[in-house]
Amino acid sequence: MKAIIITTGNEVLKGRTVNTNFAFIGKLLTYSGYDVIKGIIIKDNLEDIKNAFTYAYNNADLIVSSGGLGPTYDDMTLKGFSMAFNLKLVLNIDALNMIKKKLNEITEEREKMAVLPEGSIPVRNDKGTAPGVYKIINNKKFIILPGVPKEVESIMNNILDEIKIKDYFYYDNSIRAENVMESKIAPLISNMMELYGNEVYIKTHPLGIENKTPGVEIEVSSSGNDKNYVINNVKKILNEIKNKINENDY
Amino acid sequence: MKAIIITTGNEVLKGRTVNTNFAFIGKLLTYSGYDVIKGIIIKDNLEDIKNAFTYAYNNADLIVSSGGLGPTYDDMTLKGFSMAFNLKLVLNIDALNMIKKKLNEITEEREKMAVLPEGSIPVRNDKGTAPGVYKIINNKKFIILPGVPKEVESIMNNILDEIKIKDYFYYDNSIRAENVMESKIAPLISNMMELYGNEVYIKTHPLGIENKTPGVEIEVSSSGNDKNYVINNVKKILNEIKNKINENDY
Repeated sequence: MKAIIITTGNEVLKGRTVNTNFAFIGKLLTYSGYDVIKGIIIKDNLEDIKNAFTYAYNNADLIVSSGGLGPTYDDMTLKGFSMAFNLKLVLNIDALNMIKKKLNEITEEREKMAVLPEGSIPVRNDKGTAPGVYKIINNKKFIILPGVPKEVESIMNNILDEIKIKDYFYYDNSIRAENVMESKIAPLISNMMELYGNEVYIKTHPLGIENKTPGVEIEVSSSGNDKNYVINNVKKILNEIKNKINENDY
Repeated sequence: MKAIIITTGNEVLKGRTVNTNFAFIGKLLTYSGYDVIKGIIIKDNLEDIKNAFTYAYNNADLIVSSGGLGPTYDDMTLKGFSMAFNLKLVLNIDALNMIKKKLNEITEEREKMAVLPEGSIPVRNDKGTAPGVYKIINNKKFIILPGVPKEVESIMNNILDEIKIKDYFYYDNSIRAENVMESKIAPLISNMMELYGNEVYIKTHPLGIENKTPGVEIEVSSSGNDKNYVINNVKKILNEIKNKINENDY
């Protein structure tokens, strides 16, 4: 199952905010059995939001977006989402009750956070006011989140059971080879991928400065229905790489 | 001038790596006079890389990509880039000399880091081996970087003079309103945007937990040819917001 992550917010594009939400969501989806195939970072702009959701709908099974769900004028994710799929925005009573539990007085701006695309399910936000939004369109699942990292984590944990893929497991593990240059180990990695590339993915991450303090982390990852097989296979191949590095004294 | 940032790497999509490169590049481009309109995060996959560069070429003036420039089998950014624009990959002598300065022995994998799209200019990498790549196609500028953050910073600083927009300035500043809820201040921000939206952009960032420890940062940003005007205008409007908050005792 494929997933796409959308991040909305000028502050991310301007580098004011490091996109930790993306890493959190990417990791959670990966370990929930999804293949995260793309990330799209866009401005607080209706047309861009609409286009990103349309693209994601056409290319993935699950779409998770963060940002633009608050009470201010430029929080327009739900409007852009609704435009993409011709949905009406309607006051959602469950969402309104969630907000009322947190705020005594409901102003126009606060009520806006309870105006959701028709047919949406509001998801409890234990760390903020705006509920998350869960909506299914033709078997494609959408989770729409605010931008504050603690709220993203809270809502994702509250909706995880709905999206987690049963009987599909992802596993990765890695070893570190100190004093080994990535460029020196590259042929070995290519050979191993030729042998095992249809079962696992092998990726190297340089640790130091190549020609001064070299070092490389070798990561092997895999996924499949048989949890034990996936884990043991990754460990077996990682062990083989380790032995080859030691034998050849890179 | 519009900019698009491309990040290549499964490790980013899986949330193994927080995309700090994106924030660094986004900030540098913004303060160099660019409007960063989009970010695209893709897998180590030729087709995805090719499509991302094609999209970016059609939608921006400057494209900066990071990741996939190393010596291993899945470092394929330059190949995908070349496919997008029908460029030959050729051994670049300047790039090879840069690599020879760092590594004594040139293997096939290491030479690969000097095989660049025809007409490229290699950019010195003071923190690693693979040079950055600078290439202009029909007035569209491309900077292609490795994925290691220190190398990204080094190469960007070494090429900055080539892309910096002269006589165009970006400025932002912000104030913090403690004990003020974002949802309470939203109507004021809307009013101010109605008044000044064609000159500046006003954005609020919630600081605490809305209904428990509220607080909001109000950021005003602007850009233009007249540096002094841009700065003074932002400060003036920020001051007006500050006064209104104090007057109305939010």
